[in-house]
Amino acid sequence: VYHVDWDFQAAEKGGYAHFMLKEIHEQPRALRDTLGGRLQPDGRVKLEGVNMTPETAAYIEKIAVIACGTAHYAGMVGKYLMEKLLRLPVEDDIASEFRYRDPIINEKTLGLVISQSGETADTLAGLRAAKKAGAQILAITNVVGSSVAREADHVIYTWAGPEIAVASTKAYLTQVLAEYLFTLYLAEIRGGAPWAADLGRQLRLVPDNVAEVLKAEGQIRELASRVAKHEHVFFIGRGMDYAVSLEGALKLKEISYIHAEAYAAGELKHGTIALIEKGTPVIALATQVELLEKIISNIKEVKARGAWVLALTQEGNTAIEKEVDQVLYLPVVPSLLAPMVTVVPLQLLAYYAAVARGCDVDKPRNLAKSVTVE
Amino acid sequence: VYHVDWDFQAAEKGGYAHFMLKEIHEQPRALRDTLGGRLQPDGRVKLEGVNMTPETAAYIEKIAVIACGTAHYAGMVGKYLMEKLLRLPVEDDIASEFRYRDPIINEKTLGLVISQSGETADTLAGLRAAKKAGAQILAITNVVGSSVAREADHVIYTWAGPEIAVASTKAYLTQVLAEYLFTLYLAEIRGGAPWAADLGRQLRLVPDNVAEVLKAEGQIRELASRVAKHEHVFFIGRGMDYAVSLEGALKLKEISYIHAEAYAAGELKHGTIALIEKGTPVIALATQVELLEKIISNIKEVKARGAWVLALTQEGNTAIEKEVDQVLYLPVVPSLLAPMVTVVPLQLLAYYAAVARGCDVDKPRNLAKSVTVE
Repeated sequence: VYHVDWDFQAAEKGGYAHFMLKEIHEQPRALRDTLGGRLQPDGRVKLEGVNMTPETAAYIEKIAVIACGTAHYAGMVGKYLMEKLLRLPVEDDIASEFRYRDPIINEKTLGLVISQSGETADTLAGLRAAKKAGAQILAITNVVGSSVAREADHVIYTWAGPEIAVASTKAYLTQVLAEYLFTLYLAEIRGGAPWAADLGRQLRLVPDNVAEVLKAEGQIRELASRVAKHEHVFFIGRGMDYAVSLEGALKLKEISYIHAEAYAAGELKHGTIALIEKGTPVIALATQVELLEKIISNIKEVKARGAWVLALTQEGNTAIEKEVDQVLYLPVVPSLLAPMVTVVPLQLLAYYAAVARGCDVDKPRNLAKSVTVE
Repeated sequence: VYHVDWDFQAAEKGGYAHFMLKEIHEQPRALRDTLGGRLQPDGRVKLEGVNMTPETAAYIEKIAVIACGTAHYAGMVGKYLMEKLLRLPVEDDIASEFRYRDPIINEKTLGLVISQSGETADTLAGLRAAKKAGAQILAITNVVGSSVAREADHVIYTWAGPEIAVASTKAYLTQVLAEYLFTLYLAEIRGGAPWAADLGRQLRLVPDNVAEVLKAEGQIRELASRVAKHEHVFFIGRGMDYAVSLEGALKLKEISYIHAEAYAAGELKHGTIALIEKGTPVIALATQVELLEKIISNIKEVKARGAWVLALTQEGNTAIEKEVDQVLYLPVVPSLLAPMVTVVPLQLLAYYAAVARGCDVDKPRNLAKSVTVE
C-alpha cells in the first residue's frame, strides 16, 4: 500500500510569502503523490478505496457530479473527460441545487462527490440524497476519514497534503487528476479501452509538465500587474478550456476581489460582449487544438471591441501572436490533459494580482476554508 | 386553427420610448396569443405542430435543451419544470458547447431547440448534430418557416409577434410558456398526470398575473435609479429562481453595461461573497416557497457583508422585510409558475437602469438581434 504521511512541518510556509504560493509550488509533488503506486506501467490503475466489480461497474448508466465551488469546477473537467472517453453521460451539478431539486437518479447512477475537506455541508447532503435514491457513491477527498469518505461506497484520496490557503490550488489539481485515474479504472473494469495505455503514459508526465509551467512565474507576475489594475476581467474558453476558465475566474475573484467572470466563448455574442470596453482584460484559453480556429474567431470579436487579450496556448502555436496582446505559452500536452497544465498559470495570475492589490491572500475577506454550514 | 397575423403596424413603438418597453408591455397579449386555442378547458393541450404518438412519446428517456443566451436560460426554467413534473432527466446545454462536445444522445433523446429567430447559427448546428445522432427534435421558435422550424420534427410557435429590441423579453417569456404547454402535452400523451388540470388552470391566469406585476413599474423605476449607480450587481436565487436570476443578470448586462452576475445562492460562500462590499446591490429572488428559509439565510450572509438587498417575493410574505432593504411584491402564484411573473420586473429594472445611464436601449453596443454566425 502506498502511503503518504502528512508532515506537520509541511504546514509552515517554508520560505514562501503565503501558503497559497507554497501550495501552488507543491503541485508537482502533490500530483506525484496522488499518482503514487496507483498507475501501473501498463496503464492499469489500482485504487485501494474503489471496490467495483465488473458487474457493478457495468451497471453504471450515468455519472452525477455533486460538488460546490472549486470542486464543482473540477467536476466539470471530469464531465468533458468522462463523456468523451467513457461515453457515459455525466451531469454536473452544484450541490446546493442538486440536493433540493429532487434530481432524477437511481441505482444505475454513480454519484461523484468531490470535496477537499470532505465536510462541505451541501455536498454531504447531496451525497446522502443520492445514496437514498439508490446511487453508488464515489468520493474524491483530501481528508482521510472525513464524513464524505466514510459515507461513500468508494473513495479516492487526493494526496495533496494539508491545504491552508482558503483559495484551493493543489486540492483542485489533484481532484482533477483523480478523475483521470478513475476514468482509466472504469475503462479497464468495463472491458478495457484502446486509449488507456496512452493516457496512462501521458498522465505520468503531468507532474513534470506542471513543474515546467511554474517556470513562467516571472512572466505571469508581470501580466498580473496589468490585470490587477482593472475591476472587470473576463475569461473565455471552449470545451475543457471553458471548465478551466471558470476556475481561473473564481480564483481571481476569491483573493483579488476583481469581478472576474468566465464564459463559454460561443456565448459572448449572446450578451456579454456588451461589457467589453477599450482595455478590458480578456483571458482567452486556447489549448484545445480542435477548437483553436473557433476560439481565435472569438478573440477577434473581443479585440474588435478594444479588449486587451492574453492568450494561453501551447508552445509552438505562434500563429496566435498576431491576434492578441500577450501570449503565455504552455508545455505541449494533448488537449485532453491540458486542464491540469492550464490552470496553474491562472492560479499564479490570481495570486500576483491579489498581492499587487494588497489583499490578504491566504485569508480573503468573507470566506472560510471549508463551508460546513449551508 | 388558431391563427395570429403579425400586424405590420405592431412594429411601431406605439407611444413607448423604446421598442423594449413596448415589448415588455406586450407580454400579457403575447402570452394570451401563445396560449391561444391550445389550452383546453379540461387542461388538455392541442399543439398543431407537435405530432407525437403515444409510442414515440413513451420512447423519450431524456430531454436535451440546445440553445444560446436568453433562450438557453428559458431552457433552464424548462429543466427544473420538466424534471419535477415529468420525472424525465433534462440536460441543458449551451449550443456552442453542445455541438462540439460530442454529446451522448441517441434516438431516445428529445432535442429541445429554442431560438427566437430560428436562425441562431450554433443552435441550428446543435439541432443538426442531435438529429444526426438520432434524436427527435422539438423546436420552440417565434418565426414561422425559420430554419429551426423547418428542420425540426415538431414545432411550437411562440406567438410573441415581431421582437425588435435586441434584448429579448416577450420572446423569452413565451418560450417559457411554450415549455409549460409542452409539459402538459407530454404528460397527457404519456398517460395523464394528476397535476395536469390544475396546472392548466394556473397557466390560464399567467397573462393576468403579468399584467398585474407591470403595475409596479413606478416602483421598479425608482429601484432602477439606485441600481444604475453601480458597476457591479449580483443576483441570487435557488431552484427556478436561479434560472430566472441568470436571465435577470443577462438583461442588465446587455443594455445597461453593468457587470451583473447571477449565482445559485448556495454557491455564494464558495467564493463570490468575497466581492460583496458595503452598498453592493444584491437582487435576491425569493419566490420558491419551499426554499424560502434557505434564501433568507443567504440574504443574511450578504447583508452581514454590507450589501444593499432588493428581494422579490410573493405578496403577503412580509416576514422578509426585516431582512432586506427593499421588497418588491409579486402576485401570488404557485412556486412552479413563478418564473413567468418574476422575470418581468427584472426586465423593467434592466430597462430603467439602462435609461438612467443614458444607454441606447434598443440597440446596445456590440450586440446583434440574432446571431446567425458562430
